[in-house]
Amino acid sequence: MEIICNQTQLIGALNTALKAVSVKTSYPILECILIETEDNSIRLTANDNDFCIEVVIPATVNRVGRIAINARMFSDLIRKLPPNDVVISTDETFSVSIVCGKANFALRGLSGEEFPKPLAYDNSNPVVISQFTLKELIRQTIFAVSTNESSRVMTGEYFEISGSRLRVTALDGFRVSIRNVELRGSYEPHNVIVPGKVLSEIGKILSGEMDEDVRICFDDRNIIFEFDHTIVHSRLIDGKYFVIDSMINTECGTKVTLNRRELIDSVDRASLFVKETEKKPVVVEVFENYISVSINSQSGSMYDEIMSEREGNDMKIGFTPKFLLDILRVVDDDTVNLYMQNSKNPCFVRANDDSYIYMLLPVNIGSH
Amino acid sequence: MEIICNQTQLIGALNTALKAVSVKTSYPILECILIETEDNSIRLTANDNDFCIEVVIPATVNRVGRIAINARMFSDLIRKLPPNDVVISTDETFSVSIVCGKANFALRGLSGEEFPKPLAYDNSNPVVISQFTLKELIRQTIFAVSTNESSRVMTGEYFEISGSRLRVTALDGFRVSIRNVELRGSYEPHNVIVPGKVLSEIGKILSGEMDEDVRICFDDRNIIFEFDHTIVHSRLIDGKYFVIDSMINTECGTKVTLNRRELIDSVDRASLFVKETEKKPVVVEVFENYISVSINSQSGSMYDEIMSEREGNDMKIGFTPKFLLDILRVVDDDTVNLYMQNSKNPCFVRANDDSYIYMLLPVNIGSH
Repeated sequence: MEIICNQTQLIGALNTALKAVSVKTSYPILECILIETEDNSIRLTANDNDFCIEVVIPATVNRVGRIAINARMFSDLIRKLPPNDVVISTDETFSVSIVCGKANFALRGLSGEEFPKPLAYDNSNPVVISQFTLKELIRQTIFAVSTNESSRVMTGEYFEISGSRLRVTALDGFRVSIRNVELRGSYEPHNVIVPGKVLSEIGKILSGEMDEDVRICFDDRNIIFEFDHTIVHSRLIDGKYFVIDSMINTECGTKVTLNRRELIDSVDRASLFVKETEKKPVVVEVFENYISVSINSQSGSMYDEIMSEREGNDMKIGFTPKFLLDILRVVDDDTVNLYMQNSKNPCFVRANDDSYIYMLLPVNIGSH
Repeated sequence: MEIICNQTQLIGALNTALKAVSVKTSYPILECILIETEDNSIRLTANDNDFCIEVVIPATVNRVGRIAINARMFSDLIRKLPPNDVVISTDETFSVSIVCGKANFALRGLSGEEFPKPLAYDNSNPVVISQFTLKELIRQTIFAVSTNESSRVMTGEYFEISGSRLRVTALDGFRVSIRNVELRGSYEPHNVIVPGKVLSEIGKILSGEMDEDVRICFDDRNIIFEFDHTIVHSRLIDGKYFVIDSMINTECGTKVTLNRRELIDSVDRASLFVKETEKKPVVVEVFENYISVSINSQSGSMYDEIMSEREGNDMKIGFTPKFLLDILRVVDDDTVNLYMQNSKNPCFVRANDDSYIYMLLPVNIGSH
């Protein structure tokens, strides 16, 4: 193989592909990036067996071939080169020569034939969504995905497609986050559980542009995201997701509307008084024209008031400050609506148009 | 005590003082910041017993007093307040009330009387130097200070003042860094060893302005730096420093002049091939119009060439890449001079005007 490509484009592609390189593995081949020649381009592939990323960049191909190179070493080296042309060539013993200007490097590679390539898939009928929307919906739901591997389905996000509607749900037993998105096309019903870890990486790679699309393809066991010159393959999580519709009930009780930033600042200050050893709740009391935010722990106490509008009754309810902050921080609106029934039932943070719905379990505040 | 001060000024002062708060201590009082009222101001003091920082900021003093407050908790809290007036008051039980707008906080304090205050000192005859110069000379020498506590004097920097000349030396057994500075005034001879850890913190606090001064005062056991509204007290290191003058000999051998940036980039790339398990040297070969930079390790190899001017003979010498980079990175000049005698004797990186002199021991390259 002998190719010439641009250092800046190569680094961009490596930064994307690196996210699917295994960090801890006893197989040296899984620590590699596969480089393969195509027509006037090269394809970089990384595969940690759960999830695989392919990126294609333009290149001059002088001699076709493929080689697997240790991803960390290769990207560290390319990163330190000037933004010029890089010549990469290999021989039949898998030694790799990298030349950039007067600098010459030699590395050991591995046979590209041993590298686990992703399977072919059917991309004839993709679900199309803008990069902006996908990036936003991941950011606004991912925090509620469970990191506890003992319940596999909770480590994923539930994608429900039906007609022109996409609903994405994440939950971890303490809170639920839901995003509803209107799609441009109309699709057959399709429900899948996508690993949270993969979505989190995709969220970092996506440019987030409004006018660039992501094409999402499924088969029985895999989901594939195509965007820019990138393809991300992931296994789906097998299992039955929770039925949450019956839980979403914000009809009755108290509704409070208030400035999101002021509530974040106040709860953030209260969170200072939560220590590893003493997880005290932040207590929200709803009055006619304001809410009070307070906390009382061994390390000190806080009392604060925020102007708000109330419908319904007075209310006193306790939350884990971090969980409330997680929700408030991903909402984009200037004002938020909190729906509460009583101090024992879930609190909802819900957009007027239902584009987002968050459910948060309260914490017992006893005789506080 | 009751005072009113501005949140922004208080955060600035806390950021400085925090550097002298003990992180690991079994004395809760040493985890505190002392706040004392003065005329229209408050003085914040932190003291980890080796080193003490005082900062004065303007404040309205409604009731005089002093209080010690846990530094981490206090600064985290103040940091989360809006940039408005903060009212801090205490009572005889050392409870602290902090009010900012509608937010009210209560913290437990400790008696200010128990806080270890720094000793008085004579500031009648300070050595004066600009903040810029002190910050620069610390940055350009501190990397060569030893972190090995088994030789106490090597963990400090040697300040030699004589007439209008200040020489600062740091060394760790592998390299020596020297900065020579012309002072504005003329002073009695005075040689002291200042803890590297304290200088490193001072380097971070100094604004680095050309037209702002630092006043440096000494007594037998302490050094005091006064600048802005800040006073840093430190113990001196007791002991006899190394005599290095006889080592500084760059008269004979080979002199190479080359572009500093190109050499950094090349050695930096070579450093990729140095692993924890295999510390290979970077090999520099000097020819008439260029030098070659190469390395050869189990993980790969590199060969590079850089244009240079040579006086004297050809030369082949090996270095630890990191040690050479440490020196090259702190020099401000576009071109650097390397002085070498042979592959066994130290290499010098030396300014034309002797404002800096670095000595670096070579690494044996055997029959490389």
